[in-house]
Amino acid sequence: MKIELICTGSELLSGKVNTNAAYIGSRLSEIGLELSSITDVGDKKYDLLQEFKRAFERSNVVITTGGLGPTFDDITVETAAECLNLEIYSDKKVLKSIEEYFLKRGINSAPKNNERQSNIIKGAKVLKNCLGTAPGQMLHFKFKNGEKKCRKTLFLLPGPPREMKRIFEENIEPFLKSYSIGIKKTAVLHVFGISESAVEEMIKPIMKEAMFANSKFVEFGILASGSVIDVKFSVSGTDELIVDETINNLKLRLNNVLKDNIFGADKDTLASVVGRLLFENKKTVSFAESCTGGMLAAAITDIPGSSLYFKNSVVAYSNESKIKLLNVRERTLINFGAVSGETAKEMAEGILKLSGSDYAFSVTGIAGPDGGTKEKPIGLVYIGFTDKKETKSFRFNFNGTRDDVRERAVNTVLDLLRRNLESV
Amino acid sequence: MKIELICTGSELLSGKVNTNAAYIGSRLSEIGLELSSITDVGDKKYDLLQEFKRAFERSNVVITTGGLGPTFDDITVETAAECLNLEIYSDKKVLKSIEEYFLKRGINSAPKNNERQSNIIKGAKVLKNCLGTAPGQMLHFKFKNGEKKCRKTLFLLPGPPREMKRIFEENIEPFLKSYSIGIKKTAVLHVFGISESAVEEMIKPIMKEAMFANSKFVEFGILASGSVIDVKFSVSGTDELIVDETINNLKLRLNNVLKDNIFGADKDTLASVVGRLLFENKKTVSFAESCTGGMLAAAITDIPGSSLYFKNSVVAYSNESKIKLLNVRERTLINFGAVSGETAKEMAEGILKLSGSDYAFSVTGIAGPDGGTKEKPIGLVYIGFTDKKETKSFRFNFNGTRDDVRERAVNTVLDLLRRNLESV
Repeated sequence: MKIELICTGSELLSGKVNTNAAYIGSRLSEIGLELSSITDVGDKKYDLLQEFKRAFERSNVVITTGGLGPTFDDITVETAAECLNLEIYSDKKVLKSIEEYFLKRGINSAPKNNERQSNIIKGAKVLKNCLGTAPGQMLHFKFKNGEKKCRKTLFLLPGPPREMKRIFEENIEPFLKSYSIGIKKTAVLHVFGISESAVEEMIKPIMKEAMFANSKFVEFGILASGSVIDVKFSVSGTDELIVDETINNLKLRLNNVLKDNIFGADKDTLASVVGRLLFENKKTVSFAESCTGGMLAAAITDIPGSSLYFKNSVVAYSNESKIKLLNVRERTLINFGAVSGETAKEMAEGILKLSGSDYAFSVTGIAGPDGGTKEKPIGLVYIGFTDKKETKSFRFNFNGTRDDVRERAVNTVLDLLRRNLESV
Repeated sequence: MKIELICTGSELLSGKVNTNAAYIGSRLSEIGLELSSITDVGDKKYDLLQEFKRAFERSNVVITTGGLGPTFDDITVETAAECLNLEIYSDKKVLKSIEEYFLKRGINSAPKNNERQSNIIKGAKVLKNCLGTAPGQMLHFKFKNGEKKCRKTLFLLPGPPREMKRIFEENIEPFLKSYSIGIKKTAVLHVFGISESAVEEMIKPIMKEAMFANSKFVEFGILASGSVIDVKFSVSGTDELIVDETINNLKLRLNNVLKDNIFGADKDTLASVVGRLLFENKKTVSFAESCTGGMLAAAITDIPGSSLYFKNSVVAYSNESKIKLLNVRERTLINFGAVSGETAKEMAEGILKLSGSDYAFSVTGIAGPDGGTKEKPIGLVYIGFTDKKETKSFRFNFNGTRDDVRERAVNTVLDLLRRNLESV
């Protein structure tokens, strides 16, 4: 079965990264299917019409993203209909749900433009969009290829990623899953604390052996996203038991080599793992942040239910607020500077006292792009830790831009906390 | 002139984000050119051959990335040559430079595989790759389109981004620049506080008139990214003065219509605009965050130099810490609840007192996915404000996921602060 993807939007041709395509490609590959091609095309009717024609001729399933918005340059529905010689009608149910969407927001009548979003291709099934106004559409049709007519399926998806993802997961994935011959399973291990090339060096023997023994049925990928390294591997076959066994065996072997540098698998994040560990151990944490400026608290509160283990956080950017809010001694700041192990320790002790949590971490550093000196260069970060029993500080030199330094500092705190909790 | 991009590599079809395409699209748009399409295709000869055929038929310039590596699945050179009926030869100079590349790294003879990378299409110019072993290639050729033969240009680029970028900048950009007839300039206005379709409704007359008067020399796009709406427009022409005048005139007219809903242009963000306004007015701000959990502080400290106007922030997730750190009265929490205008006001007053800043904002709300009730549904957010003279609270009902509610709350605070500062 040939599945192809067409992504519309002029922004994709002038610099916007197409994350929708990566998402769909990745999800399909997890159920053992593959896109045969991805085409990005602008919001021009002629161009899109040509793409549709070719796609309907050569593929069994055509998926589109984008072009379902309310504005004039959203032309996917009308162009697909034109290519298939089908009519468009305004669906009353959809129109009502658009009106309700605006009512909920206190707008009494939906903007005239949004009415366009109720336009459905005749014969298509409406795929409900609970996160926005543009529904998706699924259309089964026959397309003339030379002499014979072939059965095809077209999916229209909205462009905003979260809307697209929801409809994809609820409608397209279940539909396509039934077409996927054989089994393909994918697992991801998340690693923190060692470099991408160190990871590769460590797991090379395992990769080689697995790929030699199973030829094309095992695939590996190593991908750095920020400071987290993902080891992704997939196994395909016809016997689910063997596929599962191979996956588990690989996991075991990778675990033996990468050890506690692995912090989680699949959908885990550092924040979710730390949250689970805190919850299980009935412990609470609080933060005192300088250079990370709230990112650490934002990361931990990204997880629903974090109020159970996250007490609070103080973002103390200035010396004055380090003294006033966190009780850092003025003498410490004068003698050692705001970016020092001593200050980091006092910040951690200050927030622990204030919040009454079991653990407290602090971050103070020079994120750049300015403010670096020879003694204290950009990227220098001190992390303070206290748990009532002991107070420590750690010194790091992170590389990269302001964003990189801040991201690394946040993940390093979360990873220190994880390792601490795992050793309890 | 039609320029299209073909990116090869099976990984692009199964989840890898195509950053090469975004890079090339963005560079071209900066010199007034535009890709007409981007196609991602796997490492399959038949598929790639079809793409080449279509590209040579319809485009003047075809750029490829990937498929120049040393392994069996790198087939770009041979497939392009086959499509054009041209021979391939092993270039001695290239071969020597590959050997030198390995010598430099202490390897005496280049791996046999890498010899393949000296294969050049007959008639093509070699584009030196100083960062890797695979050179780029540039080929001018004539292609038969029906009766007439057309002059075309093909560029082959390696897949690794830094190698691709270097060759693109050194060879392709200068070449294409000479073809960029006239000038194309782009401007973006950022809007907050009204919906995407409301923006379109408001600017429609301007768009229509500009596009009618200048036909294809003016282009518009409206794009929502999160809760911020971008109005992007570009003007092309041969006379820079006229292009500039048209851009400025459009800016003026859009400003007249969208008024203070426009918060910035081009590279501005809400945080950078707010930062500039605070700095210019010599004012400082502090935050008390509950449901945004540090995101507000993280947003404002994303801007280098924010220590000049950002005092500090307290992330008070629990009732206990609202009382202890922010001096919210227990009675207020009991009578009105943590998510209420009253609590929001006291949180703002608490942080203002603590930090001594000129302005203070607070956020308390229900971000979801749990915790909503009939009276206080998910998405209900109160924002508190105080500036020593007066204390106010604002009530909002945001839609969407936990991430959406938090993003909207952060941007709403920044926008309230911006409007306040602009009216000073």
